[in-house]
Parts: sequence; structure tokens; C-alpha cells
Amino acid sequence: MNKIFDPKPNEWESLLARPTQKVGDIEATVNAIFKSVGQKGDEALRSYTEKFDGVTVDNFQVGEDALTGAEESISEPLKRAIQKAYQNIKRFHEAQATPVVKLETSPGVECWQEKRPIQKVGLYIPGGTAPLFSTILMLAIPAKIAGCEDIVLCSPPDKKGELPAVVLYTAKLCGITKVFKVGGIQAIAALTFGTQSVPKVYKIFGPGNQYVTVAKQLATRYGISIDMPAGPSELLVMADETAEPSFVASDLLSQAEHGTDSQVILVSTSKNIIEKVEKEVAQQLEELPRKEIARKAIANSKLIFVPSDTDAVALINEYAPEHYILCVKNEQYYLDNTTNAGSVFIGNYTPESAGDYASGTNHTLPTNGYAKQYSGVNLDSFMKSITFQKISEKGILSLGETIEIMAAAEGLAAHKNAVTLRLNKLKETVN
Amino acid sequence: MNKIFDPKPNEWESLLARPTQKVGDIEATVNAIFKSVGQKGDEALRSYTEKFDGVTVDNFQVGEDALTGAEESISEPLKRAIQKAYQNIKRFHEAQATPVVKLETSPGVECWQEKRPIQKVGLYIPGGTAPLFSTILMLAIPAKIAGCEDIVLCSPPDKKGELPAVVLYTAKLCGITKVFKVGGIQAIAALTFGTQSVPKVYKIFGPGNQYVTVAKQLATRYGISIDMPAGPSELLVMADETAEPSFVASDLLSQAEHGTDSQVILVSTSKNIIEKVEKEVAQQLEELPRKEIARKAIANSKLIFVPSDTDAVALINEYAPEHYILCVKNEQYYLDNTTNAGSVFIGNYTPESAGDYASGTNHTLPTNGYAKQYSGVNLDSFMKSITFQKISEKGILSLGETIEIMAAAEGLAAHKNAVTLRLNKLKETVN
Repeated sequence: MNKIFDPKPNEWESLLARPTQKVGDIEATVNAIFKSVGQKGDEALRSYTEKFDGVTVDNFQVGEDALTGAEESISEPLKRAIQKAYQNIKRFHEAQATPVVKLETSPGVECWQEKRPIQKVGLYIPGGTAPLFSTILMLAIPAKIAGCEDIVLCSPPDKKGELPAVVLYTAKLCGITKVFKVGGIQAIAALTFGTQSVPKVYKIFGPGNQYVTVAKQLATRYGISIDMPAGPSELLVMADETAEPSFVASDLLSQAEHGTDSQVILVSTSKNIIEKVEKEVAQQLEELPRKEIARKAIANSKLIFVPSDTDAVALINEYAPEHYILCVKNEQYYLDNTTNAGSVFIGNYTPESAGDYASGTNHTLPTNGYAKQYSGVNLDSFMKSITFQKISEKGILSLGETIEIMAAAEGLAAHKNAVTLRLNKLKETVN
Repeated sequence: MNKIFDPKPNEWESLLARPTQKVGDIEATVNAIFKSVGQKGDEALRSYTEKFDGVTVDNFQVGEDALTGAEESISEPLKRAIQKAYQNIKRFHEAQATPVVKLETSPGVECWQEKRPIQKVGLYIPGGTAPLFSTILMLAIPAKIAGCEDIVLCSPPDKKGELPAVVLYTAKLCGITKVFKVGGIQAIAALTFGTQSVPKVYKIFGPGNQYVTVAKQLATRYGISIDMPAGPSELLVMADETAEPSFVASDLLSQAEHGTDSQVILVSTSKNIIEKVEKEVAQQLEELPRKEIARKAIANSKLIFVPSDTDAVALINEYAPEHYILCVKNEQYYLDNTTNAGSVFIGNYTPESAGDYASGTNHTLPTNGYAKQYSGVNLDSFMKSITFQKISEKGILSLGETIEIMAAAEGLAAHKNAVTLRLNKLKETVN
């Protein structure tokens, strides 16, 4: 672990820099796969699935029987855990619903804003060593609450051409019926263009490796929107003397086990805490099954001593952490002054794992400093707001001149004329 | 105008296709300017301003005196009009503020969501034949309400190296103090990288020509976000026998005068209305100062007859118009079933001009079919939502096992361990 003592603000940028991701050579591959899927549809999906997943899939869509039957192979404790997480996530995202905003801005001028669901959304769930069913909860629950009509889930098949039972069980629990056994770049291309099997969508959500990330970026060139740009996961812990070093170490390691490129940072106003956490990390690391991955991430991690709370807050806002654990006495000061963070975990008994799985908040969060301007996934991510207005005769009589004057000043005579015609008509009626 | 009678759904896609925009050859120019501004800062800005705007600008920032003095050259009626629009827009956007969403999802597990302002935002205001001061109102008012700290406005200078007085007056009225005389691709590059004069921002808003549009897209590759992808402005009017043909024609023309690539569509369940509107358009067109522009847009416009309200609604949702004027008897049916639109104008006395200038709704709206998944600019466009959670000892005792089971099932032992350590500590304390 790299220890840095009292870095000066002009050093922060380089100190906090994320590793640059090179995407140049991936782009050509992604472009080629998009072109092929756009032209050949399912045929291309089948061929790339053979190539990348090593299996031939005849029917990409998972049948109703398989979706329903998956429950049998899930243990009761796991089912109960998933259901409890489901309830918490549902409750928190339902609470985010906003009412129609309606007001009469001027007499006779009624304006309102309503949110309506994005009709077609795609959820991408990565495969790999372990099935990330928790991400299904995080994406499918708000999509259902929003009222999206078409919710399409894609995830790469295993060597038998199947999806893990826990993925199917979770999808079914969330009410998702369109589940497809296709992954990687070809899945994102399928959601972008549509194929014989996979419906085209308007917005694509979900994490993935760098191939999926580049594919999602490319999808935006074809009129599709995405949840947010993605980068490696990251955690910043702010700890003072009131923090429990073994807990802090366990949180840093839980981030480190994600991947060798995970970002792990401890900021502290206590040199003592920094020493203790470093020792704890070394001890706990040895017990982890994924210790080789975690060790590499930890080798790049940073322990940063800052002399004051003011410095800490400024440095943390500059970094804009995806996950931000706060274990300090002066808690309210930090909260009031947090401008940039994805999700904040407060106090010694709030591990990041809670938000990753079951407390109710969403775990799809802005990485790579994007917390400066992006929200994590929330209910509104699945909706768009539409404005409406209705102006009465009285309304246009009162507001009309204002519009005419402004349109004339912008040199847009037809804009003015659309009002003048109406005003003239009303004046005729009066006379 | 092109008249189409009762098109079949399989023809809608080609019928409603927007003109394709070719950006290939612009990209090289945009890349070169970005590189130069990133490296040379103000020096590059100065050189591009000489080249594209034909003027040498020494100080890019508009001084306090010029901002304050601009008021003198604005007529009283125009000032009153801008102030009235300001009040309506402010009222409507203030009403969009959302409270903190806070709840205890499980006993001892408190989760909340708060919106916080994006600290640094850039507003781009195009120059050209007429100063688009209305766009300043549409962007600066919600930015101020949101509480953005740095609001940076860029707009291209005229041949004298100045900005129009009405632009300065409107900026000052909105409380914007950082106004820069720089436009085009070089302005977007300056907001992306920062220069000696122009501060770097996190998110860039505002309309522009195709160069600015491509520049905004490129900015997203450097960690900047943008309001939305842009295309030519568009209007769809849905009119039945209750619509006033002269009003409809004036609305179509107000869209057509924007540019030769503007999209103008009339959908009607009445052949009679289509005939009448066509005649009115021909007559009104001749009176317009921008008739040559409008004539070209009108030549590409479409008058579409559909036999039923059901067909109309389906076709309109497929098109997803930026501006949607609705003059029909069966108004509520259309409103209830509108899934995709930027802003909706209801009834004979609600011209699009009202929303363009003064009713209170925002005029920065999704074009090019993006209303399927993007909102127009609104208060939330200037904020991001952050989630928070605080779990008590009781809370982790109750939720801990759920997290442990799920983390184990995803093969993430360190995630599990972060909970187990805490549970063990609490059990020790009890014993």
C-alpha cells in the first residue's frame, strides 16, 4: 500500500488519477461485431456465441418452463435472502416516485411536467466466475416500478448453453419474462439493432468488462442511450480515530477482490489509524480465496494522511468516489459538505456490502470521477420527463405580447406571427 | 408539402425518418481544434476566433462594466418581456425541486437519496443572425435554482469582438457573472479542458450547429457530460376538425423558419383540414422575411392522413416529436396515451412559440427521436442524486445474514467477511 502524507492540492490530480484505460484496439473488434449483428441478426449472434462462449445456442430466449423451474435448485436460505433484498430495494425505489408538477405560471397558462416510462429497456448482466444476480435486482426492480413495457435481459450462457439457476430465479422474481442467453459485445449489438430473437431497446443498462463498456459507448452512436459510462469499481474510506481498523480493512479488501484494477483509497486524519489498517489488511488478505486478485489491487491502493477535516472533504470531493465510507466523529460536517459521491456509507456498522446487496440503495453507481455529474441508477433512470402546457384565450391575451416582442428580437417573424394570428382572431371576436 | 394517406405501420419508419446527418468529415476538424485548445489554451482560442469569427479578442471574459451597462441599450418593452418570461420559467423550474427521499428500509437500516448541484456547468449560446437570449433563460435559470457554483457562459463574438447587449442583459438578469466571448468548437474545447481564461466544467448544455454538436459529442470522451445529443428542430401537429387551419399553418411555419433542415409534420384524421392547412401555409409563407429558409423546410414537410385516433397516437409515439401540438376534440385520449414527446402544446391557443419563450417550460428538448428515452432540460439536469445509508448495530444484526448469503452465492468472500467481522464483534460484546 502506498502511504502519502499531507499531499498539497496541486498534487491531488496526479495522486488521485485513475489508471487510464486503453480502448483503441478494442474499438475495431466492437465495430466489426456491431456491423455483423446489424446485418445478420441471430446468425451473427450464434456465431459469436460459439466463438466467445464456446457453446452453440439454438434458442436464445429462455423458455417459461426454465424460468419457472429454476426455483427448485435454489436453497431456501438463498431464496429468503434474495426476497429480503428485493423488498428493501423495491421499497427504496418506490419512494423515489415524483408526483406531476403542475402550476399556472401566468393567468390562463397551465404548465406541467410528468414522468413517463421509457418503453423498451435492455438489462445486461455479466457472466464470468460467479453469477451477478444482485445486479438483476438493482436494474429490474426500478424498471418494473417505472412501468417500462419491454424489459429485455441478456446474459452470457455457460458451457452448457444455460444461464445459472439463480439468475433465472431472480429474473422471474422481478417479473422479467424476456431473458436471452447472449452476452458480451454481441448482446449489446443485439439490443441496439434488434435481431429475429432479441428486441431492440431504447436504453441499455448494466455493468460489464471493457468490451461491454466500449460496446455500450458505440451503441450511443446508433440512437441508444446508456445508464452511464463505466470504469473499474472504487472505494474511498474516510476514517478518524473513531473508526474500527479491522472493519475498515475488511471494506478495503471487499473492494480489492473485485479486480486487479479496483481502486482502493483510505483517507485519514489519524496516522495511528493508517498504521493499524495497513496491518489489518495484510492479515485479512491471507484468508481470502480471491487473495491474488486482491493483493494486486491493494498494491496499488493509497493510504492518505491529511491534517484536517477541511482538507479531507476537499480531497474527497475532488476524487468523487463511487463508494464512500465515512467513519468519523464529525460526521455531519462531512455529510453537509459532500458534493461528489456515488453512494455514502455512514458509521462503523455500514459496510459497502450492505448497499451492494440488500439495504435498498442501488449498486449501479458512477465510477471514474463521474459522480461529479452523474447519478447512480435510480427510478428516474427508467423514465423521462415530458412537459405539457395549455393556454386559454385569456392566457394568450395576457402572455401574447411578451412572446411577440421576444420572437421579434430574435428575428423569428413566423414565431411571432403564430401568436399575432391568434391575438387578432380573439380581438375580432370581441369586436 | 408531401401528402401521405393512411400509411401502413410497416411504412412508418421510412416515412418518419429524419434526414441523416453526415458528420464524418467534421470529426477531423473537431479533433484538431480540441487537441490545439487542450495544448495551447487561450492562444488557440484567439487564433480560432480570428479564423472563424473574423475578429481578434484580447480578453475573452466580459467585464463587470459591460455586463451592467448592457441594460441601457435594451428597450423597456423588451426588458419587461424578458423579465416576464424569466418569472414564468423560474416559477416552473422551482416547482420541480424534489425533497430528500428518506426511509428505514429494514429496522435499523436508514437509506436516503439527496440531489446536489453539479458544481461546474457550461452554457453554450449560439451566435448567428440573431442573438438567442431566450436560451440563456432556459439554461441559466435552472442552473441557478439547482445551486451550481460555477456557471460559465460562452457565446461567439460579433465582428467588433462583442456580444449583443441583449445577451449580456439576460445573463446579468439570471445572475451569471462568467461570460466569455468565444464560440463554436473552440468554446466547447475550452469548457472541456479549461484554458487560462475559461474554466473547465463537468457538464455542457446548449444548442448549436453541427460543428458544436459534434464537439459536444467529442467532449464526452474526455469525461464531460452533455445535456443531450442534438439534431435539427422539429414539430408535429396533430389536428382534427376542431383545429383552426390558419393557426396550424402558422405553427408549422414557425418551425420551418428555423432552418432548411427543420422537420415539419402534420398528422390529421381529417382530409379537409389537411387541404385547408396546405392552402394557409402557401399564403402565410409569402409574408415571411425568412421565407426562403421556410420554403425549403416546407418542401420536405409531410401532411399525413390517418383514419383513426388510435393510428394517430401509435404513429406519433413512433416518431417521438420534439414539439407536439395537439388540437383535437378527443384531447384526453391523446394525452393519456402519449409515451414519447419532448413538450406537448394543447389546444388552439397554445402555439409552440409560447414554450419557446415565455410560458415557463424549457425549450431545450430532445430531437431526432430521442424523446423516447431523454428528458428535455429541467431542474434535475443540473443536479445529480446521491444515496446515503446508515446502519445501526441492530440493523446489521438483522440484515447481516442476508448480505452474507448473497455475497457467498456471488463468490465474493471479502464482501461477506466485511459483514461477518462486524457481526462477530457485536456477538462478542453481547457475551
